Amino acid sequence: MKIICINGPNLNLLGKRDKSHYGKLTLTKIESLLRKEFPKLSFAFFQSNNEGEIVEKIQEAQALYRGLIINPGGYAHTSVAIRDALEACKIPKVEVHLSHLVNREEYRQSLITASGCDGYISGFKENSYLAGAYLLTKLIKRK
Amino acid sequence: MKIICINGPNLNLLGKRDKSHYGKLTLTKIESLLRKEFPKLSFAFFQSNNEGEIVEKIQEAQALYRGLIINPGGYAHTSVAIRDALEACKIPKVEVHLSHLVNREEYRQSLITASGCDGYISGFKENSYLAGAYLLTKLIKRK
Amino acid sequence: MKIICINGPNLNLLGKRDKSHYGKLTLTKIESLLRKEFPKLSFAFFQSNNEGEIVEKIQEAQALYRGLIINPGGYAHTSVAIRDALEACKIPKVEVHLSHLVNREEYRQSLITASGCDGYISGFKENSYLAGAYLLTKLIKRK
Amino acid sequence: MKIICINGPNLNLLGKRDKSHYGKLTLTKIESLLRKEFPKLSFAFFQSNNEGEIVEKIQEAQALYRGLIINPGGYAHTSVAIRDALEACKIPKVEVHLSHLVNREEYRQSLITASGCDGYISGFKENSYLAGAYLLTKLIKRK
Amino acid sequence: MKIICINGPNLNLLGKRDKSHYGKLTLTKIESLLRKEFPKLSFAFFQSNNEGEIVEKIQEAQALYRGLIINPGGYAHTSVAIRDALEACKIPKVEVHLSHLVNREEYRQSLITASGCDGYISGFKENSYLAGAYLLTKLIKRK
Amino acid sequence: MKIICINGPNLNLLGKRDKSHYGKLTLTKIESLLRKEFPKLSFAFFQSNNEGEIVEKIQEAQALYRGLIINPGGYAHTSVAIRDALEACKIPKVEVHLSHLVNREEYRQSLITASGCDGYISGFKENSYLAGAYLLTKLIKRK
Amino acid sequence: MKIICINGPNLNLLGKRDKSHYGKLTLTKIESLLRKEFPKLSFAFFQSNNEGEIVEKIQEAQALYRGLIINPGGYAHTSVAIRDALEACKIPKVEVHLSHLVNREEYRQSLITASGCDGYISGFKENSYLAGAYLLTKLIKRK
Amino acid sequence: MKIICINGPNLNLLGKRDKSHYGKLTLTKIESLLRKEFPKLSFAFFQSNNEGEIVEKIQEAQALYRGLIINPGGYAHTSVAIRDALEACKIPKVEVHLSHLVNREEYRQSLITASGCDGYISGFKENSYLAGAYLLTKLIKRK
Amino acid sequence: MKIICINGPNLNLLGKRDKSHYGKLTLTKIESLLRKEFPKLSFAFFQSNNEGEIVEKIQEAQALYRGLIINPGGYAHTSVAIRDALEACKIPKVEVHLSHLVNREEYRQSLITASGCDGYISGFKENSYLAGAYLLTKLIKRK
Amino acid sequence: MKIICINGPNLNLLGKRDKSHYGKLTLTKIESLLRKEFPKLSFAFFQSNNEGEIVEKIQEAQALYRGLIINPGGYAHTSVAIRDALEACKIPKVEVHLSHLVNREEYRQSLITASGCDGYISGFKENSYLAGAYLLTKLIKRK
Amino acid sequence: MKIICINGPNLNLLGKRDKSHYGKLTLTKIESLLRKEFPKLSFAFFQSNNEGEIVEKIQEAQALYRGLIINPGGYAHTSVAIRDALEACKIPKVEVHLSHLVNREEYRQSLITASGCDGYISGFKENSYLAGAYLLTKLIKRK
Amino acid sequence: MKIICINGPNLNLLGKRDKSHYGKLTLTKIESLLRKEFPKLSFAFFQSNNEGEIVEKIQEAQALYRGLIINPGGYAHTSVAIRDALEACKIPKVEVHLSHLVNREEYRQSLITASGCDGYISGFKENSYLAGAYLLTKLIKRK
Repeated sequence: MKIICINGPNLNLLGKRDKSHYGKLTLTKIESLLRKEFPKLSFAFFQSNNEGEIVEKIQEAQALYRGLIINPGGYAHTSVAIRDALEACKIPKVEVHLSHLVNREEYRQSLITASGCDGYISGFKENSYLAGAYLLTKLIKRK
Repeated sequence: MKIICINGPNLNLLGKRDKSHYGKLTLTKIESLLRKEFPKLSFAFFQSNNEGEIVEKIQEAQALYRGLIINPGGYAHTSVAIRDALEACKIPKVEVHLSHLVNREEYRQSLITASGCDGYISGFKENSYLAGAYLLTKLIKRK
Repeated sequence: MKIICINGPNLNLLGKRDKSHYGKLTLTKIESLLRKEFPKLSFAFFQSNNEGEIVEKIQEAQALYRGLIINPGGYAHTSVAIRDALEACKIPKVEVHLSHLVNREEYRQSLITASGCDGYISGFKENSYLAGAYLLTKLIKRK
Repeated sequence: MKIICINGPNLNLLGKRDKSHYGKLTLTKIESLLRKEFPKLSFAFFQSNNEGEIVEKIQEAQALYRGLIINPGGYAHTSVAIRDALEACKIPKVEVHLSHLVNREEYRQSLITASGCDGYISGFKENSYLAGAYLLTKLIKRK
Repeated sequence: MKIICINGPNLNLLGKRDKSHYGKLTLTKIESLLRKEFPKLSFAFFQSNNEGEIVEKIQEAQALYRGLIINPGGYAHTSVAIRDALEACKIPKVEVHLSHLVNREEYRQSLITASGCDGYISGFKENSYLAGAYLLTKLIKRK
Repeated sequence: MKIICINGPNLNLLGKRDKSHYGKLTLTKIESLLRKEFPKLSFAFFQSNNEGEIVEKIQEAQALYRGLIINPGGYAHTSVAIRDALEACKIPKVEVHLSHLVNREEYRQSLITASGCDGYISGFKENSYLAGAYLLTKLIKRK
Repeated sequence: MKIICINGPNLNLLGKRDKSHYGKLTLTKIESLLRKEFPKLSFAFFQSNNEGEIVEKIQEAQALYRGLIINPGGYAHTSVAIRDALEACKIPKVEVHLSHLVNREEYRQSLITASGCDGYISGFKENSYLAGAYLLTKLIKRK
Repeated sequence: MKIICINGPNLNLLGKRDKSHYGKLTLTKIESLLRKEFPKLSFAFFQSNNEGEIVEKIQEAQALYRGLIINPGGYAHTSVAIRDALEACKIPKVEVHLSHLVNREEYRQSLITASGCDGYISGFKENSYLAGAYLLTKLIKRK
Repeated sequence: MKIICINGPNLNLLGKRDKSHYGKLTLTKIESLLRKEFPKLSFAFFQSNNEGEIVEKIQEAQALYRGLIINPGGYAHTSVAIRDALEACKIPKVEVHLSHLVNREEYRQSLITASGCDGYISGFKENSYLAGAYLLTKLIKRK
Repeated sequence: MKIICINGPNLNLLGKRDKSHYGKLTLTKIESLLRKEFPKLSFAFFQSNNEGEIVEKIQEAQALYRGLIINPGGYAHTSVAIRDALEACKIPKVEVHLSHLVNREEYRQSLITASGCDGYISGFKENSYLAGAYLLTKLIKRK
Repeated sequence: MKIICINGPNLNLLGKRDKSHYGKLTLTKIESLLRKEFPKLSFAFFQSNNEGEIVEKIQEAQALYRGLIINPGGYAHTSVAIRDALEACKIPKVEVHLSHLVNREEYRQSLITASGCDGYISGFKENSYLAGAYLLTKLIKRK
Repeated sequence: MKIICINGPNLNLLGKRDKSHYGKLTLTKIESLLRKEFPKLSFAFFQSNNEGEIVEKIQEAQALYRGLIINPGGYAHTSVAIRDALEACKIPKVEVHLSHLVNREEYRQSLITASGCDGYISGFKENSYLAGAYLLTKLIKRK
């Protein structure tokens, strides 16, 4: 079962960013964790700092994958373009956030992209990704 | 490993409420599902329509349980009292919502209680509870 | 035809509260008035200062009554829990207010619970209840 | 006992407008209903799409009628002029709305004209008018 | 194919108003332009400064015309009454504005009447009317 | 020197409205006062409850009068149409209000029509009209 | 002179909550302090996490006590029900807060219940209670 | 009849400031104009850039003068202190503004000090002062 | 006469997105329609999901084309960068939207990019493009 | 133990201002009351209508006094300068208000200066000062 | 080349205020630094806690100095009076802030006085002043 | 000492954009100016219209440069992604704006990216860049 995991801007910097919000792991470590925890899933990983590339990766996803995990980073709060791409993509989709958004800055309170997903998870650091993958196993089964 | 799962107002009505938002299962069904999916966890279930009773159940939780799942129902958007109780309770805590809040009414957009938890999950119907329990297994391990 | 009339917090104080807003009658007087004006209806009366108890009374109503009058008092402006219970209760429901809300404090302008009822009446003091019962006779007939 | 029933813009279109909001009856049907239900009242009916004409009809009402029912239609949300005319008119006044305003568009949430009446009723389709007349029988008696 | 073109308040003053916003042509000139550019359409023109008269003209339109162009002038931003009349009128409807509203005063930013039309055009001076007529030729064909 | 004095909705009711806001005089009394205080000015008086008629009276004013006093009543806070007509009318224009608007309801705080006049006066009851005429004698001289 | 001291949700947890906001003392310690500092007053203490129970305790207070101290905890910011009960209770009433509200979260800035008391005190930790009692000695004398 | 005319910050700069807003006259010129136009009034003039000095001048005014004209300059929009002094000063008071505030910056839209006067005038440049004095002759007579 | 038609994010998905908002045609179909309807215009078409690429295409347009049609997709509501590029591009520019924005989500109500164009059209599905091209024929002629 | 008591603008007028808000006592009477009630404290009193003088008095306070009571009058709602001076002054500080701010005008709801004090008291008329002094005896002891 | 450097309230306290926001240097130290770094400039320094004195110093500046540096302290966010004085002063003007305002309290986000300067600098502690002087050397040269 | 100077969207158009806001120089001219004014600094220049490319350039900066100047253009007001990249980049960073933002459009008032820099400068046209470089010489020295 092929899953695409899309990461937005600055997530390539994980490990260097504020650990109290984002945890200690690098993105590569999170990827290994996902593979180890869900050996039956076949993950593709993608990271881009570019809004347009993320839109395009989402547009391709329906044809190639059974499920999608997205951490849109800072684009979560501003990108109508990513939201519209997600809405048009008819596979199970989980938005994940490492940090606990309700306890952060005002400009991180509006969630635009989440409304294009099935739901979202926020605040559990690397475990947000694990829970995202766990949920995809349920959502895909259900169909 | 003992876990308390607290459900707020109207969750005793599950199965009768709008299925497009809340899914088809009753609360009892969700409880069985949790027990079946996580046989190593020992769940206690609690439902109340009363804000004060929920506050008290949270106050007792630290002494009796290793982790807490809460679906505060309508109180999620208004109860400073439940939020303060959660903040004072020093065990892993996951807030779960059946429905996808960002796509619902304006008055469901402010999340007061979530800021007293480690994080929250919204939109996956009964699977939100499963992901909540899954996350507790990770959060408790981590400590 | 059995009707439940639910009264929220501080309505047990009627007669002692500001008469320019609430009128001169006690709740007991209003109940007699209702019985006298609508002798064919069989009223049950309930008053509670407790949000959870009101939620529960609403949950039971569908099985026991043909119609529901509710004056949610101060909970009208804050209780998502009562609103959700009303929405799930599939009998004719009328929200009534003694005082004329549009002419009162800012925090009484947002109406949360009303959106779970068929409609609402505001401003006619004890007559708001009479009109509520009058409307139930129409709404129940219509079904 | 003479009663004036004033209807604002587009209420002459009833029966053609969205039935889920406004019900199925035409304005003429509602007028017959009122006459039939309250045979002791003597109703005058007036409909205008013109804010100024409505203001003038209200200005004349105190000298000619014992009570007033008004459905200001779209002017309910914008007309300070109608509100001021209502305030100056010292007979019992009931504002009625066919649709359930709290469940409609944002621009229908502010109620300007209602603050010039004794109270208002919203959401019961044609029955809102009946309840308006019913209330006038109570309010006039009371004086 | 008969088309009604309705103009709101102050559009009879065109030519005297601020040319940088409204262009140089009088309303009569715009009407000639429309007739010349669309010789196959049969236009009726109507201008009124009176909200109620505009409501009534719209109410009559469905029976008499195949399409409607409306420039509501200042009523575009305040009239729920015109909006409701437009919504009830089931022929193709285009709202046009001479000036570029997004670059003007704050109180011209909320568009109430437009939500009762199929769409709207803003900013092209007299050409907004031409594009409105052009669109009606497409919208009517499509039906 | 001919002056037009335009009065909006409900100003024909002066003397019957709340005296603490509007003073004790009727509109006729205010007119006599104006004529007596400014014997050299030739006043025309106009009152209408109709927004469109007021727009039209303003449109005619430039050709017939040297100055304009307007009390737009409730339309002061909502009418973009009257404002646009005032802006297009190139004679001295003074907006007057009997009551002290900054001390009244929230919905009387936004002043739309005033921005189409040279300035405005608020709060001096009948003296607001006198000061309006006094100012016109200065503004017209100045030209 | 009998005084009732009412404590809202989570105040039973004092001593375990964030000391920089709430101080180091438990509620029991604060009670001893009050008794020691004001030996001539006879205090009754009440704590509840339940909004309805607090409403009821306030309703009983007028008949039994000469003065009332209330720390509504989280209900201070949301409870119209407690506010209405306080307003109806005609004895001297002081609202006290341990923490300095103006320096805390946005959702703690609106004070609903305080408007039903004579005044309020915020920010002095346990001393807020002492000042509350001190003020009652003045307020009661004054009557 | 002694009148005090108080001018706030930067009004000593008149003549150098933006003429399209403030007119061409210096403050001294405006003072001569006032004396010439109202020879029967005895004016005292005061200008200060200091909020506290203006407060004090207002506090003294009741004992020494029959009427007060104030142009609070920039303090009009922020000074609660000047507003409170004006409210306590029980002689006729007129607030005047040279510029037309409704057509200026957002931060000049809130009028704090005006609510402590009998009324206000805005937009007529030097004539605003003349109208202020004219109004005082009426207001003082009236008493 | 060469025209550039720029399409923003997700417009390559047309035909798969919600047909009630966007119509049934693919972008290729819309392009053929434009070519067929306006045989004398020479269209270049460009689609990108990338904000920066759109900015660059606009920067090049002035040198290469006589007119510009832009459907900025989701960037219409957030991109100051595209707006600034449009403003600097001195050829006729029409913004077009397939869907009727005033009837959609709150976050689609603010229009940033439109203020850099001559005007905009919203709501007519594929016909919005046709009207855009039609307007360019008028705007270019006019120069 | 030396205490400074600082009073802001218009507090020198106490006794002449609205007694329902400020009580009946003059400032001198309040000072005597303080001295009589707290004979062990040595009070210095200061009143100024001038923001800058108040800032300077606060700047001097740390070197000369053990505690500070401030009633900033109207500056409480606007003065960032006084707030910053208070924050820099490291002795116990109590802000007091005679009137009950939550029940007054909107512009008195934002409290700027209070965030530079240890806490604040509002609503108890002259007793607010007494409670302020009482609290200083506790706060100073505690250090 | 004579330069005036104006400092607002509490800047005389530098060195005692929060060093993370304001840096470690006293105002005297900053003055020496300026003189040392820009030996060709002749600096005059002025500090006042009094809004009116600052207004006056600005009013005198044009005649005496070639450039102006201002750190308005807390008045930056509230003083329309200082802003108006700055606007009328026609020499190069730089507003400087020691602290990084965008990362501070909400009430420090609105910048009133800055709109009367050529530009502003925020966040570089003592270096903000140096950059201010550096910019004056450029701005004065440019003229 | 190597410095990176990053320029956002449309800054490649400098010289063609509105000169009253942006000055007369092209970006190349500004670069020469910087090199000439600061001969000891070694500048790298980068311009991109693409948010993602700017994010990446910032991510690389810490390893390659001692200081960073950024003019984010339109992204200054919307890009959480650029802000997060800046925050993670631990070298001195100065945000510069050519135009005086406080005097421009509403949508340019919120500054998102600035909160990831040490401070910002706005309004001095090309001199903003010079001051930015000047500040880096101070900030780097300081470390």
